[in-house]
Amino acid sequence: MPGSTFGERFKMTTFGESHGEAIGVIIEGVTPGLELNEDDIQVQMDRRKPGQSSVTTPRKEYDKVRILSGVFEGRTTGTPLSVMLNNTDMRPSAYDDIKQMYRPGHADFSYDQKYGIRDYRGSGRASGRETAARVAAGAVARKLLERRGVSVMAYTTEVAGIRCEAFHPDAIERNPVRACDPEAAAKMIERIEQLAAEGDSCGGIVECRISGAAAGLGEPVFDKLDAELAKAMLSIGAIKGIEFGTGFRAASMLGSEHNDQMDENGFITNHAGGVIGGISTGADIIFRVVVKPTSSISKPQRTVDTEGNEREITTIGRHDPCICPRVVPVIEAMACMVIEDHYKRQAALLY
Amino acid sequence: MPGSTFGERFKMTTFGESHGEAIGVIIEGVTPGLELNEDDIQVQMDRRKPGQSSVTTPRKEYDKVRILSGVFEGRTTGTPLSVMLNNTDMRPSAYDDIKQMYRPGHADFSYDQKYGIRDYRGSGRASGRETAARVAAGAVARKLLERRGVSVMAYTTEVAGIRCEAFHPDAIERNPVRACDPEAAAKMIERIEQLAAEGDSCGGIVECRISGAAAGLGEPVFDKLDAELAKAMLSIGAIKGIEFGTGFRAASMLGSEHNDQMDENGFITNHAGGVIGGISTGADIIFRVVVKPTSSISKPQRTVDTEGNEREITTIGRHDPCICPRVVPVIEAMACMVIEDHYKRQAALLY
Amino acid sequence: MPGSTFGERFKMTTFGESHGEAIGVIIEGVTPGLELNEDDIQVQMDRRKPGQSSVTTPRKEYDKVRILSGVFEGRTTGTPLSVMLNNTDMRPSAYDDIKQMYRPGHADFSYDQKYGIRDYRGSGRASGRETAARVAAGAVARKLLERRGVSVMAYTTEVAGIRCEAFHPDAIERNPVRACDPEAAAKMIERIEQLAAEGDSCGGIVECRISGAAAGLGEPVFDKLDAELAKAMLSIGAIKGIEFGTGFRAASMLGSEHNDQMDENGFITNHAGGVIGGISTGADIIFRVVVKPTSSISKPQRTVDTEGNEREITTIGRHDPCICPRVVPVIEAMACMVIEDHYKRQAALLY
Amino acid sequence: MPGSTFGERFKMTTFGESHGEAIGVIIEGVTPGLELNEDDIQVQMDRRKPGQSSVTTPRKEYDKVRILSGVFEGRTTGTPLSVMLNNTDMRPSAYDDIKQMYRPGHADFSYDQKYGIRDYRGSGRASGRETAARVAAGAVARKLLERRGVSVMAYTTEVAGIRCEAFHPDAIERNPVRACDPEAAAKMIERIEQLAAEGDSCGGIVECRISGAAAGLGEPVFDKLDAELAKAMLSIGAIKGIEFGTGFRAASMLGSEHNDQMDENGFITNHAGGVIGGISTGADIIFRVVVKPTSSISKPQRTVDTEGNEREITTIGRHDPCICPRVVPVIEAMACMVIEDHYKRQAALLY
Repeated sequence: MPGSTFGERFKMTTFGESHGEAIGVIIEGVTPGLELNEDDIQVQMDRRKPGQSSVTTPRKEYDKVRILSGVFEGRTTGTPLSVMLNNTDMRPSAYDDIKQMYRPGHADFSYDQKYGIRDYRGSGRASGRETAARVAAGAVARKLLERRGVSVMAYTTEVAGIRCEAFHPDAIERNPVRACDPEAAAKMIERIEQLAAEGDSCGGIVECRISGAAAGLGEPVFDKLDAELAKAMLSIGAIKGIEFGTGFRAASMLGSEHNDQMDENGFITNHAGGVIGGISTGADIIFRVVVKPTSSISKPQRTVDTEGNEREITTIGRHDPCICPRVVPVIEAMACMVIEDHYKRQAALLY
Repeated sequence: MPGSTFGERFKMTTFGESHGEAIGVIIEGVTPGLELNEDDIQVQMDRRKPGQSSVTTPRKEYDKVRILSGVFEGRTTGTPLSVMLNNTDMRPSAYDDIKQMYRPGHADFSYDQKYGIRDYRGSGRASGRETAARVAAGAVARKLLERRGVSVMAYTTEVAGIRCEAFHPDAIERNPVRACDPEAAAKMIERIEQLAAEGDSCGGIVECRISGAAAGLGEPVFDKLDAELAKAMLSIGAIKGIEFGTGFRAASMLGSEHNDQMDENGFITNHAGGVIGGISTGADIIFRVVVKPTSSISKPQRTVDTEGNEREITTIGRHDPCICPRVVPVIEAMACMVIEDHYKRQAALLY
Repeated sequence: MPGSTFGERFKMTTFGESHGEAIGVIIEGVTPGLELNEDDIQVQMDRRKPGQSSVTTPRKEYDKVRILSGVFEGRTTGTPLSVMLNNTDMRPSAYDDIKQMYRPGHADFSYDQKYGIRDYRGSGRASGRETAARVAAGAVARKLLERRGVSVMAYTTEVAGIRCEAFHPDAIERNPVRACDPEAAAKMIERIEQLAAEGDSCGGIVECRISGAAAGLGEPVFDKLDAELAKAMLSIGAIKGIEFGTGFRAASMLGSEHNDQMDENGFITNHAGGVIGGISTGADIIFRVVVKPTSSISKPQRTVDTEGNEREITTIGRHDPCICPRVVPVIEAMACMVIEDHYKRQAALLY
Repeated sequence: MPGSTFGERFKMTTFGESHGEAIGVIIEGVTPGLELNEDDIQVQMDRRKPGQSSVTTPRKEYDKVRILSGVFEGRTTGTPLSVMLNNTDMRPSAYDDIKQMYRPGHADFSYDQKYGIRDYRGSGRASGRETAARVAAGAVARKLLERRGVSVMAYTTEVAGIRCEAFHPDAIERNPVRACDPEAAAKMIERIEQLAAEGDSCGGIVECRISGAAAGLGEPVFDKLDAELAKAMLSIGAIKGIEFGTGFRAASMLGSEHNDQMDENGFITNHAGGVIGGISTGADIIFRVVVKPTSSISKPQRTVDTEGNEREITTIGRHDPCICPRVVPVIEAMACMVIEDHYKRQAALLY
């Protein structure tokens, strides 16, 4: 498939450029009979929307959700559920000078190489705006997972080298970086504001924890649960790596340390991050992703134009100085999609 | 699909348990007319086979490749190419006592949860032996990539906390850990032998470098090239994380540092690891994966049996004390599959 | 996939109920750089729209096409092309009394069995209106096929037992039943009008001819070109059968009669209908489908309600007394999708 | 996918040329815990094997089934079940003179056009022998369907213009043409023997009836149950058409005749053939396929060689003069695959 579809039995297909008329998503395989309205989706969209604080872009994307099909009298019908978001606050003129220049860190050059044509307005299809459609689909998956007793929670653990030292789940949605440690959050905010003032940006790390997922999810050998979560996460533009459980620290561990031994209460440790042999163990599924610094910065940078001539570029616009806070709901949405899909695949296997 | 198929236009489907009669792979979408014989595949199988040195298991898997279809008079026909490997040197009796106990770090428990039935002989389908089929398929992809001028090379960069400090490509296949630094390799070997003697195991890091791949490969938004490489790598049982380019270090970098600027010779740096916006840039594609310590160790460990009673287990058997050296050809095989598949998808798009 | 997606490399995903807010389609895999505007699609939509003549429903569906993404400055970008059609002239109150009764010939009962919930307004997702989205996607495929020199043409050959005895391609779009024989067309129209007055409906046969398609399209063994065309056609609600070339007449032919022999000009006959062994031969691809009589008739019929009680039902509404004329562009659209998709698959194979 | 895979949740991938070393199939998605041994498969293979009577080829294909994986201690494990059949009684020398000539009715020409290379021994991948692998997979699906109370039965209803006038299910497996009317069967056999003596062949019609399938199977809109059955059947090389229920006769029926009305006992008629709107109704699913006359005949025919020169060809070999009797178990196998797959998809939807 040509890349805009994700999932097998719970499946989404997205469309839309950042500065086109609209973006949207078709969700197939939704269990019929689920109570669902636009507010259920809107609440997740609002978590992702820009302009929430000093650490996110002041750009306005009022993502008012419209359900176009698949819901009848307040319940899902089992047929494709489509959600549309109109694009507003578009300022295509702001992109005039990038029409013929490749912005460093952006997909401008690689898209031109791939397609030979490029919608240069706001990164077109490569824009972070595309993730809004994912959040809409994830909101539906989340509702189905709630009925199964599964919860999915992501949070920032590191920004610009500043790490969370404590884990306070209640604090996450109460600070604008969505960090799990309010003290670290304060430092992160200060640092982000400083970098924004300098026209620069920074990266970070987000952790995701899936609780309550049944043991037995995931399909050996290629569609392992962690493999599909990895694909889901790396499909988010700004994410450049993922690790499960102890992750890269496992490189310096011994087998006798890393193996999760069991007693009559289950696993004593969870170094594997809840997935062994590609299949969930029933323990919390835990992974971390690295978020690269926002590509759009206003410091001057070297680049070339579409004819190969050297140029200097300064990206003027309204950009997030750090992607972490707004990528948190996207990560959760993708995780919800993967888990719900695997519940359905497991049902097909056993039935 | 139920998990034993990988790829879209260049596609493999594998079968086989480690202690069943045989394992194998069906490869679909092979370009017709390619010169191919069993030796082309055998040479890669031999790189993966056990018993090559003191740092790998002394177990014998003489993986004599048999091509059953898809080749006629020395050339591929375009129809499914099937490769079979008979299982030999099986000692199922060695697995009698794990029949009713869950080995820590192994998929025994999660498979039982998934299927309610488990082929306990040598991990069955979850065995590392399954990767032999992947190497066979990868050998075919590699031959097609050679015609395109693409090379794929993986190598160990870290074992048990010992890191390579130099990069000597010629040294890689000349030391048994397949490290890119012969001095570090010597230390790694010593450490692995020591751990093996203690009945323990260790993890490490393997880096992979793909050179010569065209710009424009990868499909936005979900089937990004890095997302599919991530899935491919995490589908290898022992791999618990992946990072592209600067990877997790990007968490403490600034946008002005991380962005790959361009001059008239192309990209000045390659922090992105050759993929931006999910599409190859033409620069080398570089990623690293973390390999967990081998689960099978002979030190006693705590576990439970299939009825939930606490037990102590000592895995006796012939196991690799470090998976890195033998996973290198598997990583290369999966990378070859992904790249060749995306060349074909790109052809379909543009045609 | 859950059924609303068709195609592999040229792929569409549709959404929408007949009486919801809108219907639409996302088309993936469109070759970038194709000149395309809304009129290119509108012209095909207009061929399908109701209210064109006395033999079609007087219902108004003014299917004004809106392209929401995938086209930039008049050319396709290679990213998902989405087309939306708002639903208008909806009279849901007309469906109040079928809320709890199963209309004979309709999918009411089977949908209730499948989903346990049903959007009873105008057949919901099972409505013929869903095919409008297919026509939009087919219009894009048709433009790509034109560049390849492929033409796709369908036409009515039989209605209510009245058969075309001549083949005049120019006459097809000039008579409201889209029959290839104007004399037969006149009789068909008379018969349809008579049946409509009686509150009844009739079936027919439509033939489709694909000219100029390259030899070598189709994928053995399961994705044969004729197998995929058959699936495409049977996926149209009213179609209950398909035959290629001589079709069911082959049952009483001998091998010496049916085999298409060759001379230096190519195939002497085309009994196979242009596909042998599932692969196109370069001859015209010819198939016929049977179109069942419209299910919605105003004659009273026996049925049951959702609680199993016997009832009598009279479907009042504005329905086509014969589906043939309006299904012609749908058949062409699906055929265009299949052929374009197979061109792209063939490119992937050979590349 | 490149064409050798069929199904989504119950899925098979086949390989093998008729005169290669072996053919086989990998079956994914098999419910774990099913009792299964090689005899369960062998019994279906034996129904398909040649040399059973005077109306089939005397060629010997002793298809001794070997299960290579996926079964452990007599039960399926849920992992890929692979079945291999060695090719025997190969006489490639018999194919020497067709190396450079295109046999009328065969895929020789179209394969050359597609691949540019062709395994000319016995049609290679296009051989009817390929269907043996399907029968093996179908045998597994059949066992799962039996547990659901579903039965699948196909039988010849017409051969060389001779039609069955009665339906005696018990007679089917007792006459070598597998006709449902023993009197017609006797005439068919006589006619087939006569044609075989003349070096000619004949076509026929096979009907298939699926009983006991639940209502609600099938996925709107593209993956309708009848659409997928149509694809499955047309993927069998010799089949050139399919019709459901009243089929092509619906072209001359009225809506008031064709609609299946209901009373408190369910559907009063079954003109739809058990599928309405693409979803099963719970009534018997009934379809008929047309089987073309065997292409291999020994009468001289006109053709060209690979360089385009006109030639005369006489196919010497051991061929079935009528394909109907041996295609019956293939049709059943494909039908079993489709139904079982849709049960699993429905489980995924509702779960």
